[in-house]
Amino acid sequence: MSFVDVLLGKPLATSDERAEQIGPVAGIPIFGLDALSSAAYGPEAALTLLIPLGAAGVAYIVPVSASIIVLLAIVYFSYRQTIAAYPGGGGSYTVASDNLGAYPGVLAASALMLDYVLTAAVGISAGVGALVSAVPQLQPHTLAICLGILVVVTIVNLRGVREAGVFFMIPTYAFLGSLLCAILIGVTKTVFAGGHPVSVIPPPAGAAGPVSVAVSLWLLLQVFSNGCTAMTGVEAVSNGVRAFREPTVRNAQRTLTVVIALLAILLAGIAYLVRAYGIQATDPVQPGYQSVISMLVAAVAGRGIFYYFTIGSVLVILSLSANTAFADFPRLCKAVAHDGFLPHSFGFRGRRLVYSEGIYVLAVLTGILLIIFGGVTDRLIPLYAIGAFLAFTLSQAGMVGHWRRNPGPGAVRSMFVNGLGAVTTGLTLLVVLVAKFTSGAWVSVLLIAGMMATMFWVRKHYSEVANETKLLAPLQVEYLGPPIVIVPIESWSLISQRAMQFALTLSPEIHALHVGTEEETNALQDNWNRLVAEPVTRAGGTPPNLVNLSSPYRLIIKPILDYVLYVEAHNPGRQIAVIVPELVERHWYHYPLHNQRAELLKAFLLVKGSRNIVLINVPWYLKA
Amino acid sequence: MSFVDVLLGKPLATSDERAEQIGPVAGIPIFGLDALSSAAYGPEAALTLLIPLGAAGVAYIVPVSASIIVLLAIVYFSYRQTIAAYPGGGGSYTVASDNLGAYPGVLAASALMLDYVLTAAVGISAGVGALVSAVPQLQPHTLAICLGILVVVTIVNLRGVREAGVFFMIPTYAFLGSLLCAILIGVTKTVFAGGHPVSVIPPPAGAAGPVSVAVSLWLLLQVFSNGCTAMTGVEAVSNGVRAFREPTVRNAQRTLTVVIALLAILLAGIAYLVRAYGIQATDPVQPGYQSVISMLVAAVAGRGIFYYFTIGSVLVILSLSANTAFADFPRLCKAVAHDGFLPHSFGFRGRRLVYSEGIYVLAVLTGILLIIFGGVTDRLIPLYAIGAFLAFTLSQAGMVGHWRRNPGPGAVRSMFVNGLGAVTTGLTLLVVLVAKFTSGAWVSVLLIAGMMATMFWVRKHYSEVANETKLLAPLQVEYLGPPIVIVPIESWSLISQRAMQFALTLSPEIHALHVGTEEETNALQDNWNRLVAEPVTRAGGTPPNLVNLSSPYRLIIKPILDYVLYVEAHNPGRQIAVIVPELVERHWYHYPLHNQRAELLKAFLLVKGSRNIVLINVPWYLKA
Repeated sequence: MSFVDVLLGKPLATSDERAEQIGPVAGIPIFGLDALSSAAYGPEAALTLLIPLGAAGVAYIVPVSASIIVLLAIVYFSYRQTIAAYPGGGGSYTVASDNLGAYPGVLAASALMLDYVLTAAVGISAGVGALVSAVPQLQPHTLAICLGILVVVTIVNLRGVREAGVFFMIPTYAFLGSLLCAILIGVTKTVFAGGHPVSVIPPPAGAAGPVSVAVSLWLLLQVFSNGCTAMTGVEAVSNGVRAFREPTVRNAQRTLTVVIALLAILLAGIAYLVRAYGIQATDPVQPGYQSVISMLVAAVAGRGIFYYFTIGSVLVILSLSANTAFADFPRLCKAVAHDGFLPHSFGFRGRRLVYSEGIYVLAVLTGILLIIFGGVTDRLIPLYAIGAFLAFTLSQAGMVGHWRRNPGPGAVRSMFVNGLGAVTTGLTLLVVLVAKFTSGAWVSVLLIAGMMATMFWVRKHYSEVANETKLLAPLQVEYLGPPIVIVPIESWSLISQRAMQFALTLSPEIHALHVGTEEETNALQDNWNRLVAEPVTRAGGTPPNLVNLSSPYRLIIKPILDYVLYVEAHNPGRQIAVIVPELVERHWYHYPLHNQRAELLKAFLLVKGSRNIVLINVPWYLKA
Repeated sequence: MSFVDVLLGKPLATSDERAEQIGPVAGIPIFGLDALSSAAYGPEAALTLLIPLGAAGVAYIVPVSASIIVLLAIVYFSYRQTIAAYPGGGGSYTVASDNLGAYPGVLAASALMLDYVLTAAVGISAGVGALVSAVPQLQPHTLAICLGILVVVTIVNLRGVREAGVFFMIPTYAFLGSLLCAILIGVTKTVFAGGHPVSVIPPPAGAAGPVSVAVSLWLLLQVFSNGCTAMTGVEAVSNGVRAFREPTVRNAQRTLTVVIALLAILLAGIAYLVRAYGIQATDPVQPGYQSVISMLVAAVAGRGIFYYFTIGSVLVILSLSANTAFADFPRLCKAVAHDGFLPHSFGFRGRRLVYSEGIYVLAVLTGILLIIFGGVTDRLIPLYAIGAFLAFTLSQAGMVGHWRRNPGPGAVRSMFVNGLGAVTTGLTLLVVLVAKFTSGAWVSVLLIAGMMATMFWVRKHYSEVANETKLLAPLQVEYLGPPIVIVPIESWSLISQRAMQFALTLSPEIHALHVGTEEETNALQDNWNRLVAEPVTRAGGTPPNLVNLSSPYRLIIKPILDYVLYVEAHNPGRQIAVIVPELVERHWYHYPLHNQRAELLKAFLLVKGSRNIVLINVPWYLKA
């Protein structure tokens, strides 16, 4: 078993595909991780904006969370329908380009691709950031830990979708179990205490000073837009429908239902307890910062083993949330590449049936982001709700078009559901865009525009090539006339003899080229007449023409190349076959002992050549 | 004018060789620099060993220097004869292998090559060492300055031998002029003072303590052997005879005469003045170290402008003494490569008619030594007289053989001169070897043995290849039968059509290979029958055989490769022609948009192929 087999697993045959497919139990960790883990930072992102309101501000989290949960429900019903309508994988790109056209489709793809790259980078660095704030000794190794996690996630995903599900299952369910427990305990205590529970460990008191900001609609919209980061990752399931085993649609829908339900419970529970325990967010750039989840669990259950288990599982899940991007990004790229907007190689399936190139590209882009930002990617957060909501909106709008073109029982109801989804996510997109435009969202807009331009450029190139090489005419069988054969010869040896023999089978018109000193030329000319020209003449053939090229500057390749191009220019329409005799070393350590002119000549001919020049390589393998 | 033209000069035609040749005025800086500069450290190396004898020890420098000068005179007459006998370049390698056989020849070559690499490294680092001891602020940049000088020397030598002569002329004559002046002034003062001159600036007093070591023959032998480092570089002229213009031999001999005479004068003058002024060497690892030349010039002329000019020119000349190695090493490698003991590429002349590869190799090896030792190569000094004296001895011994085989007028006298040279340098070699064996000379011995083994291995490989490819039989003209043609086809397009058309001109037996999904295979099969098989059949030909290869693991190259090798194994003696259709991008930025399977297939076929497999590349150049 080779090292690669151990690292990535044995190759899977294309016919093994069915065995690689997954059910909801593995689907939740793979496609739900991003959505579920955002419960750990979405509410906090909203609460942070409420800090200036002091203790009174905390109460606003409940209506904000409620509206986010309503939005989530609308999006849920929309995507449920999308899954049923697109059992082959209904990502935003497919739905939008199918129903709205190429531009909206490419727009959705660009937005989502940007979102996935940012999700991967921000997920890993958020988890590691929480880890190093818990264990400050690790601070200097932030970037190394980030890159280490990136490598692990990459390898696990290259091992195939089923193994990734198994790998991520334990941390996912540990996270869900402990956080749901904490919420259950907290809610129970609150109910028994008549709505005013006593904290086991009270959260730090908020700012004592006077409330500095009045509540405004604008502030609440910003709080809402921050909280919406909790919704990123929701579209992952609909994109990955094909990864599920039969019944594919049912399994994908079940997975979506469970993920959304759990996310809603987590968001509602956290909002309820935050208000009940009066937990204010602390400023992350001030000393004494503590995350909302940490304060919440400590207030509910104290700092015992349970606390540390819960916080630990949050850290792990945050840093692994990049996995959803790794599951979806390659599928998205494959769909886009299939339509010619990205290199076709995104559609090749690697040894474990995953679209390896997408995984590599995502890993490299994420790695670059992590390295540029030193593993601290907070400043990227404003960029990435844009992509998600743009994709939501285009996908839902596309579904409206879908129902319009496929009328049938329930189509009107479905159109209404998707239309509601499109309008609400579109409005949310506007809110997010306006609220965050100056703090970074404009970068997203520019990047998405650039990606779209590139994709259309790629598509244009592919269609030009297709037009150029498209062929519907039958093969021309009429004899085209023999090619002009050119054979560069260094000296007369078995190597050059074999090349000449092959040349004689091709054409009667052979130019043997020789570049060398006077001495070498004379030696070759002697052999030539005796060993080549005479036997050919005797057999009644045309003797090949030995051309001695002068090379005042001792260059070898250039005179040969010039001669070939000269012959080509003076024989328009004729095919030119250049036969390159080549000595091939059997061992790498013999490599420096022989000149590599044949290789160089081949490379130059390929670069400088034309469609009329065919390159024939007659290799001579050393026994020695 | 391109950057390379500016850096290295315009290319020189082979016919420009005559204009590149030099006379004695340029020959002295090029081939004499190493020998002459050693006057600056040879006497010091001898005097350092005399430190324990105190003031009384200084007197021994005169007899030691006298014997070195006698040895130098013997070597001079020997090499004068060698130059006359070998006007094509009579380096130790040529003379020894011509007259004594391959083993002594290769031994001489290995010894000299080692010597040259060490000379280059030690020369540069000695000069820079002297510079940084004069300007201690430069100390942290020792290695950078060393490498900078190495780059300059390399570029100057790549610009051709004549330009190198011009470049090194001014520093060489400045060094010679000022040092000879200092000696002249000193000798005049000494004579006028009746042998007891008064120092302008007295040298530091020697160790005040009692004399700790008695004079012994062993000590004097060691002193002699250290002083002999002054003789390295003497063989350079005889190696480079071909660089001189007509009359070649006279010009080379004149150059040798001037170099040896100047060296003898410098050595004698320094020895005389050292005794007259009572200059004791100071310990280089103790504070207050000062070089002998510095003390001498200060004693003779004080520390005025003249002192600084002289010391400055010594520094420059030491660090440029590497140039002799750069002038000779490539010529030596070329001679060795010509006989097949080194890769033939050492014999190619670059754009300025110099043997570029030797220059590159020397530069890289010197750079590696400088980097390993951080620019401080003192510990290498014991290693490098061995190489020089081994080469001297073999060269002179070879000349004895030469005169024996070429009797004639004066041959007996010449044989006596060379024999005397061989015996004296051989004895000196023994002394040096014994005196320095434990302090590093054993490394030289090991390295020389390793180099010899490599050279014989290279030669063995070349003769095996020559035997394998040697050909004296005439071309077989009988028709060999058409090859079996194999054409991998991705899809039916103009690209594959052209390849098939070329295949049809080659042979009636064509296997078109296709690897793809069922869908792709069906599409191709439809086109195939309509567009290929039918027209060929209608024209009365054998329709090509379309082979659909299954690939459960989605590999493309491997099934094709396996099929080719299978066909080859089952058709012994038949020629197999693999036609690879290839799409060639016109722009680098189109490269990622197309798969590079054609390139990969070509590379794999070349590695895995056999002599029966000919590789035909039918390129299709994109217009787009």
